[in-house]
Amino acid sequence: MKKAAIIGGTGYGAIELIRLLQSHKEIQLTKIISQSQAGEDLSSTYPHLSVIITKKMESLDLEELKKEIDILFLATPAGVAKNIIPSFQDTSVQCIDLSGDFRLTGEEYSEWYGKEPASAEVLEKAVFGLSDIFTEDIKTASIISNPGCFPTAALSALIPLIDGDKIQTKGIRIDAKTGISGAGKGLSEKTHFSTTNENVIPYKIGQHQHIPEIERYASKFAGKDLKVSFTTHLVPMTRGLMCTIYADIKQRETTASILNYLEEYYQEKSFVRILPEGIFPTTKGVAGSNFCDIGAYVDERTNNLVVVSAIDNLVKGAAGQAIQNANIMNGWEETMGLEFIPVFP
Amino acid sequence: MKKAAIIGGTGYGAIELIRLLQSHKEIQLTKIISQSQAGEDLSSTYPHLSVIITKKMESLDLEELKKEIDILFLATPAGVAKNIIPSFQDTSVQCIDLSGDFRLTGEEYSEWYGKEPASAEVLEKAVFGLSDIFTEDIKTASIISNPGCFPTAALSALIPLIDGDKIQTKGIRIDAKTGISGAGKGLSEKTHFSTTNENVIPYKIGQHQHIPEIERYASKFAGKDLKVSFTTHLVPMTRGLMCTIYADIKQRETTASILNYLEEYYQEKSFVRILPEGIFPTTKGVAGSNFCDIGAYVDERTNNLVVVSAIDNLVKGAAGQAIQNANIMNGWEETMGLEFIPVFP
Amino acid sequence: MKKAAIIGGTGYGAIELIRLLQSHKEIQLTKIISQSQAGEDLSSTYPHLSVIITKKMESLDLEELKKEIDILFLATPAGVAKNIIPSFQDTSVQCIDLSGDFRLTGEEYSEWYGKEPASAEVLEKAVFGLSDIFTEDIKTASIISNPGCFPTAALSALIPLIDGDKIQTKGIRIDAKTGISGAGKGLSEKTHFSTTNENVIPYKIGQHQHIPEIERYASKFAGKDLKVSFTTHLVPMTRGLMCTIYADIKQRETTASILNYLEEYYQEKSFVRILPEGIFPTTKGVAGSNFCDIGAYVDERTNNLVVVSAIDNLVKGAAGQAIQNANIMNGWEETMGLEFIPVFP
Amino acid sequence: MKKAAIIGGTGYGAIELIRLLQSHKEIQLTKIISQSQAGEDLSSTYPHLSVIITKKMESLDLEELKKEIDILFLATPAGVAKNIIPSFQDTSVQCIDLSGDFRLTGEEYSEWYGKEPASAEVLEKAVFGLSDIFTEDIKTASIISNPGCFPTAALSALIPLIDGDKIQTKGIRIDAKTGISGAGKGLSEKTHFSTTNENVIPYKIGQHQHIPEIERYASKFAGKDLKVSFTTHLVPMTRGLMCTIYADIKQRETTASILNYLEEYYQEKSFVRILPEGIFPTTKGVAGSNFCDIGAYVDERTNNLVVVSAIDNLVKGAAGQAIQNANIMNGWEETMGLEFIPVFP
Repeated sequence: MKKAAIIGGTGYGAIELIRLLQSHKEIQLTKIISQSQAGEDLSSTYPHLSVIITKKMESLDLEELKKEIDILFLATPAGVAKNIIPSFQDTSVQCIDLSGDFRLTGEEYSEWYGKEPASAEVLEKAVFGLSDIFTEDIKTASIISNPGCFPTAALSALIPLIDGDKIQTKGIRIDAKTGISGAGKGLSEKTHFSTTNENVIPYKIGQHQHIPEIERYASKFAGKDLKVSFTTHLVPMTRGLMCTIYADIKQRETTASILNYLEEYYQEKSFVRILPEGIFPTTKGVAGSNFCDIGAYVDERTNNLVVVSAIDNLVKGAAGQAIQNANIMNGWEETMGLEFIPVFP
Repeated sequence: MKKAAIIGGTGYGAIELIRLLQSHKEIQLTKIISQSQAGEDLSSTYPHLSVIITKKMESLDLEELKKEIDILFLATPAGVAKNIIPSFQDTSVQCIDLSGDFRLTGEEYSEWYGKEPASAEVLEKAVFGLSDIFTEDIKTASIISNPGCFPTAALSALIPLIDGDKIQTKGIRIDAKTGISGAGKGLSEKTHFSTTNENVIPYKIGQHQHIPEIERYASKFAGKDLKVSFTTHLVPMTRGLMCTIYADIKQRETTASILNYLEEYYQEKSFVRILPEGIFPTTKGVAGSNFCDIGAYVDERTNNLVVVSAIDNLVKGAAGQAIQNANIMNGWEETMGLEFIPVFP
Repeated sequence: MKKAAIIGGTGYGAIELIRLLQSHKEIQLTKIISQSQAGEDLSSTYPHLSVIITKKMESLDLEELKKEIDILFLATPAGVAKNIIPSFQDTSVQCIDLSGDFRLTGEEYSEWYGKEPASAEVLEKAVFGLSDIFTEDIKTASIISNPGCFPTAALSALIPLIDGDKIQTKGIRIDAKTGISGAGKGLSEKTHFSTTNENVIPYKIGQHQHIPEIERYASKFAGKDLKVSFTTHLVPMTRGLMCTIYADIKQRETTASILNYLEEYYQEKSFVRILPEGIFPTTKGVAGSNFCDIGAYVDERTNNLVVVSAIDNLVKGAAGQAIQNANIMNGWEETMGLEFIPVFP
Repeated sequence: MKKAAIIGGTGYGAIELIRLLQSHKEIQLTKIISQSQAGEDLSSTYPHLSVIITKKMESLDLEELKKEIDILFLATPAGVAKNIIPSFQDTSVQCIDLSGDFRLTGEEYSEWYGKEPASAEVLEKAVFGLSDIFTEDIKTASIISNPGCFPTAALSALIPLIDGDKIQTKGIRIDAKTGISGAGKGLSEKTHFSTTNENVIPYKIGQHQHIPEIERYASKFAGKDLKVSFTTHLVPMTRGLMCTIYADIKQRETTASILNYLEEYYQEKSFVRILPEGIFPTTKGVAGSNFCDIGAYVDERTNNLVVVSAIDNLVKGAAGQAIQNANIMNGWEETMGLEFIPVFP
């Protein structure tokens, strides 16, 4: 059994990691690290963990971690992991970063995050942990850059279509909808119930920091730089994320031919479900689970393809995929600790 | 003071008409007609109307209506109004139909609604009641075909852009999000709270009956037949409708130049608000009101224009616009009875 | 037409006052005062007011107010109004305070609000503005202490029953449920959507500052000091407030006899609706309106009376009742500017 | 490994049983029985089960069940189980009924359910499966009558207090709030999103069929017949149930003394959590889990005790408790298959 620690103990990412690791057979969570709340019980912030998690939160002690931990999950705000992970370079500790610190080139990171990037050397070692696409690379990685929630949903649908040369790489539009938990635990007017309930709120149109992340990894499969139009909307629900993606079909395709293609592309993957013709993903259909559901429709009137993908932003879009990556890195069954069914209704 | 009747007394469209007409200075609601509940109190179905509406619902009596009524609102399911409105051809009764019966050509109606269309002669007389665009035609109309909720939001944003030759008419994508009240009062799995809450549900992708309505009226301004890709999503809120529209910019434009253009286009219109750069419409920002809010963003990286429009589907998308049309037809102040502020929060 | 100012310009109470006053025939809102945002457009905080309210917010200038204003609404946090209202003592300005500053005796205020109370002299002049009960006193008041949202709903149901000696005054239990807007615009974990959605959260059990307010005015009708058990719960909705009240019946009563009694008690009141047997109030049934709906059930098995009252916390529970009080004070039709129908659905 | 079947395959109770049994180490779900949908894939009704549950639903064949099944879960509407369970009398099949058919005496059942009751002989054999209270009886039972959702929450809080003679048994008031999933999958106006969202709806006041169930089992501990006042409210959330219970304290108690007492009462129980002073249960704090959280407050001003209990109505209030009962009957670890943490946020 391997020992794991989580840094960033009281954010939603950490809380979801704690929930999921509870039933993992090969990972024992031995440390929950929170600088701001070291020494406190987790249940003082999260009463729902009373009785279950009795461990106190600890402050960060890198030397102790190096000695006692096998897997390190970093669920920290942007700009933190890049300062911590380099310390583990010469150790066998597997680092999985749920923040954006290792997802972009240094230049892109400076531009979109407005912060100093990690060193090129460490950046180079980080593998983009889109588990169902980059599986082979993940197997031998020591640093995983866990994808953002929007890129997970968007790329899971886009990459196969680009890879198979099914769509024009120019003119791709991604219309994303997310539940409020995607904005994290922080307080702002946009997370205030009275603002958000009974509301759809577009935000950061064309300016979201997930744009370069989507473009970077989609471009790898396009064989050239592609650009996407990406728009995000807050919808009044806690969990759930959907991307509705529009692209021009290259050759003549039908809904059935696209679905067959996707089905084959993912046939060995446990967590991507291609839905039958006429059925589209819903965010509730994946709630609390690690699934990414994908549906498609070819509009023959306009030669337009509509692909819809849905995930739980906190599971497949964060903590669940992080654990899937840990499983892959350690040669365990990919589904270990993640076998649960969506919570419905 | 003119006398009005509503046919289709217990649907959401009728209920909203009743709410709005209550404070109208020139229209007196004298008859609420419901075939299925004639003789009953409206408050037996809608307790929130107790004390306020004490009139009993009546059965349909065409001869009586012709004699006693000046304005007839039809808030009936598809296929009903087309059989009623012809009876009023030789009268001075102004007919405003909130259903889809007069929005399409006969051929389109047969195809998309699967029903026998109204006669060509009556269809021809019907004026499409998109109040802020077809204002002049509405002034002299005797039959108004009140637009669908999605077409209202979509066309209010699209028509100026097409009219001013700002966008390519090929490749327009409309991603629509609607609250559940848009599905009406009928019971179905998709209106069940447990299915819909904490969920985003795409439906009728590429097959919604509002598609030909959008294309028909957008085409008038394009000077040729255009086609749009149109996708609808149910989001977990009661009221509110948003269209996020994607199109390729024709010439070099900035966000500011597009917003200025729209601002001028609508400068004399009371109910279309063009939001300043960086601010986007929200459904809550128009809730309960007759406004259509529009925002825009030009993504210079992709030469893509994103336009967002938001309305209350039951007001501007149905009952409110119907009353605005009645105001225009009768030469009253366009805002009469519709001056209220959005309900926020 | 009288001129009004609102102090506390950007809270929910003020925003709702602005919404409602917009259609008032005798009150013209000429000043919106906000110390923290003086000089700014209201629409910069509330885009839904774009185009509608173009007046800039102003800083507080008491001398100017005394000269230019007839009615002053104070929608300020606890502890502010008590320092402002005394300045208007020698003027004819009618002051209506929506905060808790004038609702309790000085002693109670110190105990429950933990602040220095207003002077006894000014406290004495303040009339408790429970419009449908204290109508006569309000007519001649110069200072109105507008009731809290919970006391409005609770007392509207309780006072008639105590006044008519229908219930035991010992053992009254009030179980209250409120939408999140009751917590105001401030940011806290309890107003974060992700915490509050899909949740019922009890809070301040037995310790809510509205307890002494309920007890004080109920005691007036009991002829002796009574105490109530009062429990509040946040439910995942924006607006709406319900009190479910339990009391022991004194003499033999039926549901019908209690409803008849209440019906008579309120027969001349426009805004209290007694629902027929078997129908209970819902918060949606009064949403956006100034109604207080009341239903009752006598459980003959246990000799227990259940009375349910529902209001919109921002209308009848705050801004609507404040305007109703202004109407009463000025001898206008009590319903002026408040005639609108609940927004349903 | 024991084999289990579920009858009533497409209701929410069954779907939740399927979700939970998926990870149970000693129970294999081998049959899902649905008369109305026999032969169909479960995923045709519930797309979220695609890929996961590929078993087709079957029609009811009693003889086959007797031969092949060890544990039978009945998640059927009232009136069905009473006709099926008697067939298993002479077998070793353990029957766990989630409906109300075996919860009351024959006479009570006739009165409150308006149906013919099960035979006295079979009724007598049924053990009330309130797992944390009747643990000993459950161990040897062959028929379990799984409690209703409201009685589970109400009795878990009430029984210890009655058992320890802490409260007056006269004058107990239970104010219950439930999410909409408690109303099941059926379509009605009360489950329509537009009716229920942004609403609190009281229903069946004093007339709910769970009243005699609460009274029957509370009376056992009171040593005499007691009656409760019980009021239910629908709140706009999918899952979750809370009972706020009011009772008069018998002797002098403080919040701390009551909490200590409850803590001791349940000290050996895994699924009842007594929260510390000042913290109250929330429905989200138990969502998706089998916990029953309890908090208390002694209002020394009124000598009134407020106890609050919260459960997930579909887990502890239905499927989770059914599995806990199966665990107890079979001598397995009580928590088997139920060890998961609440889903938060």
